[in-house]
Amino acid sequence: MARLGAHGHGKAEVRLVRIFRGGAAEGGAADGGAADELRDWTVSSRLSGDFSETYLTGDNTGVLTTDAQKNAVYALAAEHGDRQPEQLALRLAGHFAGQPQVSRARVEIAEHGWRRVGDRAHSFAGEPGFTRTATVVTDRQQGRLVLAGLRDLTLLNTTRSEFAGFARDRYTTLPETADRVLATSVTARWSYREPGTHDWAGCFDRARTALVEAFADTYSHSLQQTLYAMGERVLRALPEADQVRLVLPNRHHFLVDLQPFGLANENEVYLAADRPYGVIEGAVLADDAVPGGQLPWD
Amino acid sequence: MARLGAHGHGKAEVRLVRIFRGGAAEGGAADGGAADELRDWTVSSRLSGDFSETYLTGDNTGVLTTDAQKNAVYALAAEHGDRQPEQLALRLAGHFAGQPQVSRARVEIAEHGWRRVGDRAHSFAGEPGFTRTATVVTDRQQGRLVLAGLRDLTLLNTTRSEFAGFARDRYTTLPETADRVLATSVTARWSYREPGTHDWAGCFDRARTALVEAFADTYSHSLQQTLYAMGERVLRALPEADQVRLVLPNRHHFLVDLQPFGLANENEVYLAADRPYGVIEGAVLADDAVPGGQLPWD
Amino acid sequence: MARLGAHGHGKAEVRLVRIFRGGAAEGGAADGGAADELRDWTVSSRLSGDFSETYLTGDNTGVLTTDAQKNAVYALAAEHGDRQPEQLALRLAGHFAGQPQVSRARVEIAEHGWRRVGDRAHSFAGEPGFTRTATVVTDRQQGRLVLAGLRDLTLLNTTRSEFAGFARDRYTTLPETADRVLATSVTARWSYREPGTHDWAGCFDRARTALVEAFADTYSHSLQQTLYAMGERVLRALPEADQVRLVLPNRHHFLVDLQPFGLANENEVYLAADRPYGVIEGAVLADDAVPGGQLPWD
Amino acid sequence: MARLGAHGHGKAEVRLVRIFRGGAAEGGAADGGAADELRDWTVSSRLSGDFSETYLTGDNTGVLTTDAQKNAVYALAAEHGDRQPEQLALRLAGHFAGQPQVSRARVEIAEHGWRRVGDRAHSFAGEPGFTRTATVVTDRQQGRLVLAGLRDLTLLNTTRSEFAGFARDRYTTLPETADRVLATSVTARWSYREPGTHDWAGCFDRARTALVEAFADTYSHSLQQTLYAMGERVLRALPEADQVRLVLPNRHHFLVDLQPFGLANENEVYLAADRPYGVIEGAVLADDAVPGGQLPWD
Repeated sequence: MARLGAHGHGKAEVRLVRIFRGGAAEGGAADGGAADELRDWTVSSRLSGDFSETYLTGDNTGVLTTDAQKNAVYALAAEHGDRQPEQLALRLAGHFAGQPQVSRARVEIAEHGWRRVGDRAHSFAGEPGFTRTATVVTDRQQGRLVLAGLRDLTLLNTTRSEFAGFARDRYTTLPETADRVLATSVTARWSYREPGTHDWAGCFDRARTALVEAFADTYSHSLQQTLYAMGERVLRALPEADQVRLVLPNRHHFLVDLQPFGLANENEVYLAADRPYGVIEGAVLADDAVPGGQLPWD
Repeated sequence: MARLGAHGHGKAEVRLVRIFRGGAAEGGAADGGAADELRDWTVSSRLSGDFSETYLTGDNTGVLTTDAQKNAVYALAAEHGDRQPEQLALRLAGHFAGQPQVSRARVEIAEHGWRRVGDRAHSFAGEPGFTRTATVVTDRQQGRLVLAGLRDLTLLNTTRSEFAGFARDRYTTLPETADRVLATSVTARWSYREPGTHDWAGCFDRARTALVEAFADTYSHSLQQTLYAMGERVLRALPEADQVRLVLPNRHHFLVDLQPFGLANENEVYLAADRPYGVIEGAVLADDAVPGGQLPWD
Repeated sequence: MARLGAHGHGKAEVRLVRIFRGGAAEGGAADGGAADELRDWTVSSRLSGDFSETYLTGDNTGVLTTDAQKNAVYALAAEHGDRQPEQLALRLAGHFAGQPQVSRARVEIAEHGWRRVGDRAHSFAGEPGFTRTATVVTDRQQGRLVLAGLRDLTLLNTTRSEFAGFARDRYTTLPETADRVLATSVTARWSYREPGTHDWAGCFDRARTALVEAFADTYSHSLQQTLYAMGERVLRALPEADQVRLVLPNRHHFLVDLQPFGLANENEVYLAADRPYGVIEGAVLADDAVPGGQLPWD
Repeated sequence: MARLGAHGHGKAEVRLVRIFRGGAAEGGAADGGAADELRDWTVSSRLSGDFSETYLTGDNTGVLTTDAQKNAVYALAAEHGDRQPEQLALRLAGHFAGQPQVSRARVEIAEHGWRRVGDRAHSFAGEPGFTRTATVVTDRQQGRLVLAGLRDLTLLNTTRSEFAGFARDRYTTLPETADRVLATSVTARWSYREPGTHDWAGCFDRARTALVEAFADTYSHSLQQTLYAMGERVLRALPEADQVRLVLPNRHHFLVDLQPFGLANENEVYLAADRPYGVIEGAVLADDAVPGGQLPWD
């Protein structure tokens, strides 16, 4: 009467902090000792394959436990000392996809930022201005997909943003505006053309800078226009990538009506609203990107 | 050099509380007055279509603003008085997809539960045991998809769960167990064969009951086995549906080692862990379900 | 130049699930077996005393580690099988305050609700309609304070609430209303006159019922009035208590203006707002309560 | 039978973004225009006084509505252009305490950080490395209390932290360690001796720097010792303050056992745990601080 469709299992949110003792690339520390380097990662894995037996009969013979997936995260991080999340994600996805019962492995790493305290060798302060992400999908048949990105990067322009000329239906009451605050929290991901060979940190920094600067420099007639400018700027700064996907919530800032108090509000006092919020989404592709030629991103 | 790919925009998390004055189906209230009924919904919409102009040039002529989408939620809820989230989602998605510039509309509603206080006509207490969800995708070319479901339904069996016989690789250290606590937080969605004609509340209740009872009644050799049993039970209880998709986090409960304190722990004292957690996913399809014949669920 | 003031240390959010095998008070289970009972608790402890050495010199001789506090939670829960959070809190606070270096111990337990699935012996569903709380402060000199309470109990009246006649200053623009939705999320705590001897579950149920019914039955001219009625009702229902403290956020529900769409809104369609929210606080004391005669509640 | 005890009401979490057009103190912007400055604040107020009538009878004559409190936040921020949260908190608390029915007003402001994007005049990126806080309590009889502080400042030392020599009771199983990771998320507040006359931004920066550097520079035998060093350093750096209160969760980092995989773990691979966590609290007072001479901090 029923049959099993797509299925899989994985371990979510393995918390890994990896310290590279005396391993900082940058110059010597204040106290003469070699400076430590730190990575703070949350790692999630998901395996696909034919695991139907455990679903249908409870026979677990083919199941690579989620506990073993967790162990592999810690063990491979220890053994190989990868410093970039893309490297560890590639290693883990390759490891999992090498198991006979696994046809596809997906590994996602979120990197929580820390910066060194002054020139101290051993001290760090959290720097949560954004979360860096890296995702690798390794499929036995179809090869690999490497995504990098970020989320929770909050940006705001105090002016140089209009919104006018939009469609007006029965339910449209929004007044047009020639000057508004534009604010968002960027989620961006981009796919690499050739997985496996890049200066991951340098690529990430170029992309992040492109996102921030395109947002800042675009005179905006819509958040959509800003989104496209951000995606295009990433592709220009990062020829290693062939596609960028962006999700931009529109964090509305409403001008507060101060007239009841006999005060003017010359675009100075705003209410920052929580919900609801607009969501603008879009993909920007390099001209030579192969449409549909990719493994699924999610 | 670059081009626009898939794109869209919508309004997320419109908070709507709809009161049906004196409109309770059930019998009279304690004080003789007619009892009110209450719906507490969070509504999100997303529109697809050719909105490329606003992305590429900032020309907003074709943009149906997210503010208008929010207004439509309130106005259509007021005008038509739908009491089931599937009804309002169908109405809204149909409305949006009827706009010339829209090729596909997706509307998702989360229902936050309340129950009447005793036999009071006007008083309610929050009942957040789960969140009911309803999603409608209306596509001009491809028709409609109606999904219903729930999330955050927490279930726990104190026994009648084993986990053994699984694969053992280099990273497998997990001991086998013949008796464990099995706990999860259910996210389930099912698709209706024919959108538009059902007793939505009755269908939902049948599905929810099937999920809970299948979880409780299945002697489990793996959470995967339990998942399949839950999906199969829904299809049996709800022939109106042709597919069920389940995501079941494995909320690990670890037996606490009390030996250092000279105490035994005969499966009585557990540490409920937060992270990491296993995630088991799977779809269960009716035998006659048309594979690939559906609009995308997300 | 500087000196140490008030100080202390503790362990926060120890997650404990305690299963009483075959220990349900209620009648037999569907399958003939004895039904299990379940407690799901989050326990936090805080110890005061003269721990100045570790602060000033790093000499830890007197420090009862937070790890040992965690262990004590699991061990005492295992050994004594307390079924009410007040019982375990009393036991733990007494244990900690019995250590020579501790002058005062505070233990707080949050109970997460579960209900049995039908008549199954071993299956439970989460019932998060509120979180029950129990707090015990044991002081070597000043004796004990036992608090019980709840939080996150959401209540809503669809009518029978006015708000008018309030003060009007330069910044008051709020219109008066003779009919509004009144909604809140109750945080309540009450203190027991004599700690140590009560039917804790029965007391809790009486107090919770009093809170809900007083909210439902009070025709409200202000949330303050409702608060007082709730507190007074608890004292009447629970003579074992001599003080009730309530914190009631005012979860604003704004009537949506539908006139732009040619629709009336006869108190049927509301926007449920997140922030900001009003907060109403108050203590209600039994006539014979000894003011200031208590240990601090926080 | 019952009577009203301590009570009050306020508005929580008013979201205010204040833009100072062309008002940046720092030099000209890249594009020649004058640079904007930005403040992003969440403001909460709480009023005490004799509001017993509304509690006891629903007579709201003396109630200064929470809506009017919200309006005052926006209006006073607009009218006076305060740039430091302490200034606005002082102004608001003074305003509220000037109302005849109010005996004490408490205003708390949380400042969400933003930094300018490069040398752009109008663009900002969120910088949530910590949340700055300012609290003012103004009492008609007892004068004023001004607190400043921060929360969510995450700090981590990779070494130079021991924990040994602690008390061992029946429930102590923790091994001693001569080298551990020490991590915390700082909540700190300090009180100013003379409210009303300081370089608030400069004071805040001195205190924050003191906290970070004392954490980094202290060779730690316990988090308590580090706490005291942090408080003492603030008092030294900020003679304007006479008391510092610190709450430091101990964010445990557990060394992962890699022996089952044939790997050593030389203090390189850690599991960052969520719950439970230790909490270390303490106040550090200037030698000449007047004990008990202050208004309540909470």
